[in-house]
Amino acid sequence: MKIALLGYGTVGRGVDRIIRERVPDVEVTRILELPDRLSDPRMTASFDEILADDAVELVVECMGGIEPAHTYIASALRSGRHVVTSNKAVVAAHLAEFAALAHAAGVGLYLEAAVGGGVPWIAGIEKVRRVDDVTSFSGIMNGTTNYIVDAMRKERADFAEVLAEAQRLGYAERDPSADIDGVDVRNKTIISASVAFDVACEKDLPTSGIRNLTLADLELFSAHGRTVKLLGRGVAGNGRYAAAVEPVAVAASSLEAAVPSNFNLLTLDGTTVGELRFYGQGAGSLPTGNAIVQDVLDCVTGARRPVYDFSRALAYDPSLLRSDYVLRTTAALDGEPYGPGALLVRDLTAEGARALLDEALASDPTTFMAALPRED
Amino acid sequence: MKIALLGYGTVGRGVDRIIRERVPDVEVTRILELPDRLSDPRMTASFDEILADDAVELVVECMGGIEPAHTYIASALRSGRHVVTSNKAVVAAHLAEFAALAHAAGVGLYLEAAVGGGVPWIAGIEKVRRVDDVTSFSGIMNGTTNYIVDAMRKERADFAEVLAEAQRLGYAERDPSADIDGVDVRNKTIISASVAFDVACEKDLPTSGIRNLTLADLELFSAHGRTVKLLGRGVAGNGRYAAAVEPVAVAASSLEAAVPSNFNLLTLDGTTVGELRFYGQGAGSLPTGNAIVQDVLDCVTGARRPVYDFSRALAYDPSLLRSDYVLRTTAALDGEPYGPGALLVRDLTAEGARALLDEALASDPTTFMAALPRED
Repeated sequence: MKIALLGYGTVGRGVDRIIRERVPDVEVTRILELPDRLSDPRMTASFDEILADDAVELVVECMGGIEPAHTYIASALRSGRHVVTSNKAVVAAHLAEFAALAHAAGVGLYLEAAVGGGVPWIAGIEKVRRVDDVTSFSGIMNGTTNYIVDAMRKERADFAEVLAEAQRLGYAERDPSADIDGVDVRNKTIISASVAFDVACEKDLPTSGIRNLTLADLELFSAHGRTVKLLGRGVAGNGRYAAAVEPVAVAASSLEAAVPSNFNLLTLDGTTVGELRFYGQGAGSLPTGNAIVQDVLDCVTGARRPVYDFSRALAYDPSLLRSDYVLRTTAALDGEPYGPGALLVRDLTAEGARALLDEALASDPTTFMAALPRED
Repeated sequence: MKIALLGYGTVGRGVDRIIRERVPDVEVTRILELPDRLSDPRMTASFDEILADDAVELVVECMGGIEPAHTYIASALRSGRHVVTSNKAVVAAHLAEFAALAHAAGVGLYLEAAVGGGVPWIAGIEKVRRVDDVTSFSGIMNGTTNYIVDAMRKERADFAEVLAEAQRLGYAERDPSADIDGVDVRNKTIISASVAFDVACEKDLPTSGIRNLTLADLELFSAHGRTVKLLGRGVAGNGRYAAAVEPVAVAASSLEAAVPSNFNLLTLDGTTVGELRFYGQGAGSLPTGNAIVQDVLDCVTGARRPVYDFSRALAYDPSLLRSDYVLRTTAALDGEPYGPGALLVRDLTAEGARALLDEALASDPTTFMAALPRED
């Protein structure tokens, strides 16, 4: 099969290399690149030229960002090309539209690389759902923030110091807000919820990040036998679902707590299979490239043809996600003492907690909040 | 598709229930049971009667044991039936024969449920190998022994006490030797190595278990920041491979150390995907039943048709698996002190370590040995 790559950054180069070295039946014949970077005879700066090439049966989008990725993916689907994408932002924003276009054109839409890099999470959910309902999921979905928290804990270093180190190592962007404010995890949570629950997921999920996490916060939780992980979570049942992104004070003995460096850990609960977890490299040229190539092979071999049908009426109900919360803040809030400067507020929805955090941030912009699971 | 179940124990009943409740396109029309247990019109005590039923296209073997399972699987394959099995003992003993029969008859042979229960490990390895070489694997593959070690550690209880509790709960057999001496893990390691490395795996792998593990041993390792897990491991490269089963003193901060109760954790390293891990229920009616049903669906939909080709010449080379070892023994051995009554012996092959353990057991039958990874 002849395929086109849209984008030739870290991921695109990984895909090109893996296919050249390891996949004889697939050939990258076209690559969309910026006009000043056309260094390879396969490259063009014109998407229309790629679209006009009838030999191209599948388009891999790994440009990132919303536009022009959204337009290109929609055009490729409309033109009868299968699409494989690693772009979580555009998929989170437009999955329902893409799914409808793929369905109408009778082509495949493959999202494995958009969540969890090389971890077979999306295909794993889809496989579980052939037999089971997925009743909940949760995950360490962002390697950058896991790296930061892990390094803070192990090196006893503060947030800014570790973030700067992560930026030097290329684990964090120069503008780290998508990672540390939970936006990246929200995109991945939206996609996971859509695939797990068959729903065009609510986009405005309660979201908080780790920007205000201090070494002292980690030490406070450590004294309670816990550490902090930024988790995306979703739950469904009885025709309703909820999802949220927030730091969670997980038990120090949990698998989440043991996830090192920039690895991801993704967990689901299925009706008969029970708890399943998937762990691996959530980013990087070869792991994410591998996920894309696996999707391409699923398409080429016909092994897997995802169908996303969002027609069932599943109601978004934030009250399904309840937890206790710890806030470290100087704001005047009602709550039980949890440690120096920290309060425990019981039984909030994720949405209610996010509102309380906003209230606290208004008077203390350094406030940090984490959910405290009621049982582990 | 109409299918037959051979065996109606815990797993067989799970398969029957999952198919009845959740899989409309598959029907269990025949069940092989003992003559005094024919409680259902689908049941017969005659395998030949099932074999003579041309409507049956696929046979699920979940009887366990070597015979008659071996004869029935071989007959079913020869007769052109697809076979799905959860029987690790018979697969470990006869995989090359079954693979050749399946190939000759043009039918599928599906093994997912034989290792890791509901964990998608076998299909996971096969998927990785579409793109990557698998260079190593390791796993907590036996829920009973993980339950025992976990409970010893958490309840500060000794081996015999926890084993008795596990037997009461049904987690351990009345004769626990297959679990605690590593025989069950050896079968799963043989199967994993066969699938990961495409080799008719050596059957006589170095194998030791946890029968002699004491609470004092766990406390000794705990003082070194470690705990003990019974692992099956394999490694391959440069036309050679090795595999072994032994207790390993893993770092307390590792994911292995965090695996609770009777869960399994299976890890592989792939060329481009890097480290991947799969975690879940390694046994039980519904999880193992789920794995069987997933295999049935892979067969029905054509999504996956495993091909096991053991024709490549991969040499078994025990020297590929080297480690340091700790022995708690009163036997007179050369080594460095590791703690009260315990010695550290450096740089042994798994095979050499097993020979040293035999030597120590001859003079101290309570000797316990664990590998000490050189880096974590």
